[in-house]
Amino acid sequence: MQTTNSSVEEDMFQVRKLEIMDKNKGFIELLQQLTVCDSISHEAFIERFHELANCGDEHVICVIEDCNSGMIVATGSVFIEKKFIRNCGKVGHIEDVVVDSVVRGKQLGKRIVDFLSDHARAMGCYKMILDCSVENIPFYEKCGFKKKEIQMVKYYV
Amino acid sequence: MQTTNSSVEEDMFQVRKLEIMDKNKGFIELLQQLTVCDSISHEAFIERFHELANCGDEHVICVIEDCNSGMIVATGSVFIEKKFIRNCGKVGHIEDVVVDSVVRGKQLGKRIVDFLSDHARAMGCYKMILDCSVENIPFYEKCGFKKKEIQMVKYYV
Repeated sequence: MQTTNSSVEEDMFQVRKLEIMDKNKGFIELLQQLTVCDSISHEAFIERFHELANCGDEHVICVIEDCNSGMIVATGSVFIEKKFIRNCGKVGHIEDVVVDSVVRGKQLGKRIVDFLSDHARAMGCYKMILDCSVENIPFYEKCGFKKKEIQMVKYYV
Repeated sequence: MQTTNSSVEEDMFQVRKLEIMDKNKGFIELLQQLTVCDSISHEAFIERFHELANCGDEHVICVIEDCNSGMIVATGSVFIEKKFIRNCGKVGHIEDVVVDSVVRGKQLGKRIVDFLSDHARAMGCYKMILDCSVENIPFYEKCGFKKKEIQMVKYYV
C-alpha cells in the first residue's frame, strides 16, 4: 500500500525552525552541498545564530530533521523585507534552500519551501521571491512560482 | 567646456539617506514611477520609516535631492542579509531603484547604486545582488553587475 508507506516515511521527517544544537546534527555540512561553506567555529555559529534569532519572525531558518538518523537533511531560509511601495508592503525573500543528496526525491524541498511560504504569508507579505539556477526552475514552478526577472550580482574582491 | 558644466550640474544633486521630511518632497510620488504605490497616510509613513530606521545600517534607503527644486528625484534601497554560508557571510540586496523620468540621463541611477554598493561593502558583504527586467541589464552591467540566475516569484492572493 503505497499511500501508507509514504505516510509512514513522511513521519520520519520533522519540519521545524533551526535550533542551536543543529550544528551538531550536520547543518553546516548540509550547507556545504549548496555552496562554499567552510567549517564555522562554535563561537561564530553561536554569534550568528543569536544575531538571526534577534530578528525574530523577520528572518527564519527552516530545517528538516531525519528522526531516524537525528541529522538535518534539508534547510532553507526566509527574511521579510519591509517596503514603502504596495501600501507599505512586505516581501519574503527565500534563500539557501538545499536538500541532502542522499534523501532527494522525497518532496523535502517542497516541504521546506511550503513552510517558508506559509511563514511569509502569515507575516503579511504580498509576494515571495527567490533566485535559482535554470535547472531548478521546474522545481520552483511545482512550488507555485513563476519566472519574473533576471538576477544580477556583483562580487567584492 | 563640457566637464565644467557637468561638474556644476552634479553639485545640484545631493546624495544622502532618506529623511522623514522626504515624504513632503515627492518621495512617494517617485516610487509611483516604479510600481504600484498608493498614497500612504502620514501615520503609515512615519511608522514604516521608524521600523526601517530601527534596522540601522542593516537597511538603508538612499535618495537624491534636486537642490534647485527641493524634490527627491532618485532612490534605491539595500538591506544586509546575514548567512551561515561563506564563513557567516553577508549579502547586500538592492531593491526599488528608480530615477524621476524628468531627470534621466544624468547618471543619477548609477550614483544611487554606487552609494548602496559602497554601503554594502562597508558592512562587510561579500557580494551584492538585485533583480531587474531584461531592458535594465545594460544599466546594471555599467554599474559592475553580471547576470547570474533567474528570479522566481509567487504572489499571495
